[in-house]
Amino acid sequence: MKKPYAIGIDIGGTNTVFGIVDTHGKVVSKSSVQTNQYPTPELIIDDIKKKLDPLIEDVGGISNIKGIGIGAPNGNHYTGNIEYAPNLQWKGVVPLSKLMSDKFGIPAVITNDANAAAIGEMIYGAARGMKNFIMITLGTGVGSGIVIDGKLVYGHDGFAGELGHVCSVRDGRSCGCGRLGCLEAYASANGVARTAKEILENQTVDSLLRNIPIESITSKDVFDAASKGDVVALEIFEFTGKILGEAIADFVAFSAPEAIILFGGLTKSGDYIMKPIVDHMEKNLLKIWQGKIKVLFSDLNEADAAVLGASALVWEL
Amino acid sequence: MKKPYAIGIDIGGTNTVFGIVDTHGKVVSKSSVQTNQYPTPELIIDDIKKKLDPLIEDVGGISNIKGIGIGAPNGNHYTGNIEYAPNLQWKGVVPLSKLMSDKFGIPAVITNDANAAAIGEMIYGAARGMKNFIMITLGTGVGSGIVIDGKLVYGHDGFAGELGHVCSVRDGRSCGCGRLGCLEAYASANGVARTAKEILENQTVDSLLRNIPIESITSKDVFDAASKGDVVALEIFEFTGKILGEAIADFVAFSAPEAIILFGGLTKSGDYIMKPIVDHMEKNLLKIWQGKIKVLFSDLNEADAAVLGASALVWEL
Repeated sequence: MKKPYAIGIDIGGTNTVFGIVDTHGKVVSKSSVQTNQYPTPELIIDDIKKKLDPLIEDVGGISNIKGIGIGAPNGNHYTGNIEYAPNLQWKGVVPLSKLMSDKFGIPAVITNDANAAAIGEMIYGAARGMKNFIMITLGTGVGSGIVIDGKLVYGHDGFAGELGHVCSVRDGRSCGCGRLGCLEAYASANGVARTAKEILENQTVDSLLRNIPIESITSKDVFDAASKGDVVALEIFEFTGKILGEAIADFVAFSAPEAIILFGGLTKSGDYIMKPIVDHMEKNLLKIWQGKIKVLFSDLNEADAAVLGASALVWEL
Repeated sequence: MKKPYAIGIDIGGTNTVFGIVDTHGKVVSKSSVQTNQYPTPELIIDDIKKKLDPLIEDVGGISNIKGIGIGAPNGNHYTGNIEYAPNLQWKGVVPLSKLMSDKFGIPAVITNDANAAAIGEMIYGAARGMKNFIMITLGTGVGSGIVIDGKLVYGHDGFAGELGHVCSVRDGRSCGCGRLGCLEAYASANGVARTAKEILENQTVDSLLRNIPIESITSKDVFDAASKGDVVALEIFEFTGKILGEAIADFVAFSAPEAIILFGGLTKSGDYIMKPIVDHMEKNLLKIWQGKIKVLFSDLNEADAAVLGASALVWEL
């Protein structure tokens, strides 16, 4: 009998969200726990199981569930482990998919969070029907999932697609990875805040953003200010979009995708960020690609996207 | 009956080399014509056929030949065309694989020259047994062929792998493609000559390279000078290796390859170029990849490599 449900688990630095998803990509039930409250992976799995058990019963029991898909920072599809994730308190190598599989008695598969999002986007979202696209997640960090010929790229060791850590500015800003000038240091939530800080400190021009404590400026604040015509806010989007557009032009030279899909907080700024991204991407593309590469925002419901993407891994088992 | 031979044709801006290759990768016979002497593709195909016909007879006739593999600048695997190749006098779109197939009465397949080299390397060369690697050709231009999961990456439109045109230096040197700062403007034969010119003109230090007309300095000249301890020559390799190592670190972040394979004139400089490439790659890699990425020179005989690579396309038919 074909098993009609999958469990999707999205492990983030702060929250872990999980749910049961049907084959049409409908999240039929959902719950969550706080990741950072669990000093060991065994403890979080205990609590996830306690919360999932009644939801599993609601869909007719575990025999109706094909498997568990997990998206996690530094999740390695080949090994089933989370390996040295900087944002989690579980250190070293955690054999998470084995722990999950043992606990629930069904297969479990893991990948990193951005890869999970890319698969979700391909099966249920803006990349439906596409065989070649690059998903870029713009959140606390900048992640990516690369799809070539309908398949996620894992590379030789399972860690392919670290596009947040290509060098955008040689000897530029320090990045959390310990290196300088990474895309993530400019296009992440924190990167946008740093750009705001730099511009506000180096210029004397009036700005609505000066009413906000400089360390706590978010892309939402920049969007609100831009909506009111704030020139500093517009300059922040122009700068961020330039860095992203330039990076994307190089990504296109690599895999010649049909589309770039953008996901995460920054995309809520709509055209304010999309326009400079597309302008600078076009300026930096080889002629053969000019006017041909779609740049799209994810069209998955953000609250469900991570769980959907993780669950979608199961259909590939 | 299994057909034991393939024809490989490598179309370059100056010469077109072709030969008959057996299933073990042995070039059993070879010939060539001068590409730029033929104003139309039909005329070059006529002469290629005249030269190939006796060679085909030597291996028992056309019924022993599975097909024709062609490597050509801007060769598009999907369409079978050469599309707007800047270095060829045949303008616009040339349906080369159809013309060849019609002329010889056997299947023909085309890809760009760097992709052909990558396939040759995977089947017969330094990348034997590898499923994830990136081939970088350092010649008149800088080309690349990317292999992921054992397959060449063509992308949505067939033009993937233009790594010579990622941006190495923002607003840097002008490139033949019309843009600024491309890797090709630094790591091609011409790029090395430009670096030599810049260093010789901006410094007064003595150098053996000052005995050579500045416009005609080749990487061979730089190698010869470096062998004698010439400081300018060493600086040229350091600079070129830095640009290449930095670019390669970004390529690794994309597809997490097992190895980078380098091919072409510059590789004849051996450790003089390899050492700075590896040093700067390591400095710029994310921690997860440090010490793990092999950088290798092609081990194909250069005279045969292009024909071998093109012929290898046929075995994938």
